[in-house]
Amino acid sequence: MKLVRSTLALAAIVFVSVTTLHAQDPLPSWNDTAPKKAIVAFVEKVTKEGSSDFVPPAERIATFDNDGTLWCEKPLPVQLFFTLDRVKALAPQHPEWKTKEPFASLLKGDLKGALAGGEHAILEMMTATHSGMTITEFEKIVADWIATAQHPKFKRPYTECVYQPMLELVAYLRANGFKTFIVSGGGIEFMRPWTEKVYGIPPEQVVGSSGKTKFEMRDGTPVLLKLPAVNFIDDKDGKPVGINEHIGRRPVMAFGNSDGDLEMLQWTAASSGSRYCLYVHHDDAEREYAYDRKDALAKLDKGWDEAVAKGWTVVSMKDDWKTIFPPEKK
Amino acid sequence: MKLVRSTLALAAIVFVSVTTLHAQDPLPSWNDTAPKKAIVAFVEKVTKEGSSDFVPPAERIATFDNDGTLWCEKPLPVQLFFTLDRVKALAPQHPEWKTKEPFASLLKGDLKGALAGGEHAILEMMTATHSGMTITEFEKIVADWIATAQHPKFKRPYTECVYQPMLELVAYLRANGFKTFIVSGGGIEFMRPWTEKVYGIPPEQVVGSSGKTKFEMRDGTPVLLKLPAVNFIDDKDGKPVGINEHIGRRPVMAFGNSDGDLEMLQWTAASSGSRYCLYVHHDDAEREYAYDRKDALAKLDKGWDEAVAKGWTVVSMKDDWKTIFPPEKK
Repeated sequence: MKLVRSTLALAAIVFVSVTTLHAQDPLPSWNDTAPKKAIVAFVEKVTKEGSSDFVPPAERIATFDNDGTLWCEKPLPVQLFFTLDRVKALAPQHPEWKTKEPFASLLKGDLKGALAGGEHAILEMMTATHSGMTITEFEKIVADWIATAQHPKFKRPYTECVYQPMLELVAYLRANGFKTFIVSGGGIEFMRPWTEKVYGIPPEQVVGSSGKTKFEMRDGTPVLLKLPAVNFIDDKDGKPVGINEHIGRRPVMAFGNSDGDLEMLQWTAASSGSRYCLYVHHDDAEREYAYDRKDALAKLDKGWDEAVAKGWTVVSMKDDWKTIFPPEKK
Repeated sequence: MKLVRSTLALAAIVFVSVTTLHAQDPLPSWNDTAPKKAIVAFVEKVTKEGSSDFVPPAERIATFDNDGTLWCEKPLPVQLFFTLDRVKALAPQHPEWKTKEPFASLLKGDLKGALAGGEHAILEMMTATHSGMTITEFEKIVADWIATAQHPKFKRPYTECVYQPMLELVAYLRANGFKTFIVSGGGIEFMRPWTEKVYGIPPEQVVGSSGKTKFEMRDGTPVLLKLPAVNFIDDKDGKPVGINEHIGRRPVMAFGNSDGDLEMLQWTAASSGSRYCLYVHHDDAEREYAYDRKDALAKLDKGWDEAVAKGWTVVSMKDDWKTIFPPEKK
């Protein structure tokens, strides 16, 4: 009996400590440096009723870029790894790819050659692998791939190469009444199968690039077919367009990591009322990757200058984050 | 003191009665006929944990057409009245309209002539009046118009020509964990300025037709400019496309009133799990309007046959609704 009581008492202490700790520190993976202080100060002022900075809950919109902001985008964006794997998987059905670039190089094992055509080559491979099936079939292809594919450096699923400090931030904002959205250049249908599980962000709060789809009846059953045509590119000056089309409100907080996010941050910062913008700066070659101004796929160049000029937060992953990735799953 | 006590007791009784009434009847403006019973039975089964029909809260998506389903679309769709008013307001800036159809007829007071060109004429007037300004400017134009314009027959604001039974239904579904969306052929930017206030549906849950927009910097301030080009038509086979693009889940319940909603209802009905589809049938010439199979702008023809064949609910406004519109605002 005494043991039971002691155990209960201990459990109570542990519970209280954890609760207190959590109440004191919603962002435990962030070092106690300027970015964390700025985030907490901002959230406290906009959620304080009666404050001149108060933002009503319905207007608390926070938008997050995905690649490089919520999860790792190096050595290549995850959707590009997916695309390359799909080209290989579909090659038997496409004998013409053996002699057609960029497919031919890739199938010979020459990744550099396949990517030499730049954005055009990437778009061609994406279009070829992201169309010709129903949205339901594509969802299953993505779900199956993401369940097994591994990051080449970290040797863990891509969905575990997400940034622990950002997971805490997303949860912290939601706990403070924010509706959290992804606004990514990545494919909307590539993200939706897993964002709810990984980030707690449901499909209807994912904004991304998309291909055209077509409604048709197949033996009396309606399907949406993915067509080989671009519908919308949710990148750069497309991000405010996507935000307006999908959300219809201007964000109160916006988070990015590259020039692809600059217009989203500008669009956020320039609206009336309290606004907050943040760039994640990849400067941790040891724990992740270091890249910025000159990066081929994810330049932080104009955005860096504007962040400095406007006083936006720039997070040093090296100095401001205690940990990068979540603990390994058993 | 006794009086105070009695008053408090009376207040308590009234409060209990109202609460009980509400608990018993979430749809007081619906007659106790088959549609109401079917709706309540469906909602009860999909929200009952442990039931084989249970739908988790995150998946409870309900989509509502707007024109003719949530508000009156006769004698003309409200956005068309808005468009006609805008043509008149903008005419001084467009001397060329005096000799150009459909503008010329309208400006001479010949509405029938202006609409003789059908959908093409309507689209031309809409494009001319819905572009050339920023989204913020357009939002104000809509808000100002909707605050003062009156329905020609009912002599009250259009936002009060909404269906009281449907307001109750939207609220009832939300109270049962549904996320309620508008999926309308109407303009997304024409609806968003007022749907939250009128239906409790926030901008991010409004799906509609849209024009293209363009991000640009004006004297260092970012704006989104409305261009004279169609981006997306959220009608007929466009509705499942819009639902997929904006929501990324298939609805559990869908509500419409015309063939423009048929594909949305088919898309809803054909997905796995418990699904519910309903058509509002306009058969009340006295309290509203009577129209269906042969209506020029809102045919309920193929949809009627499919509803009968599939056992979808068809609401008779005349027989199933106690009242049509909310009480007049003071």
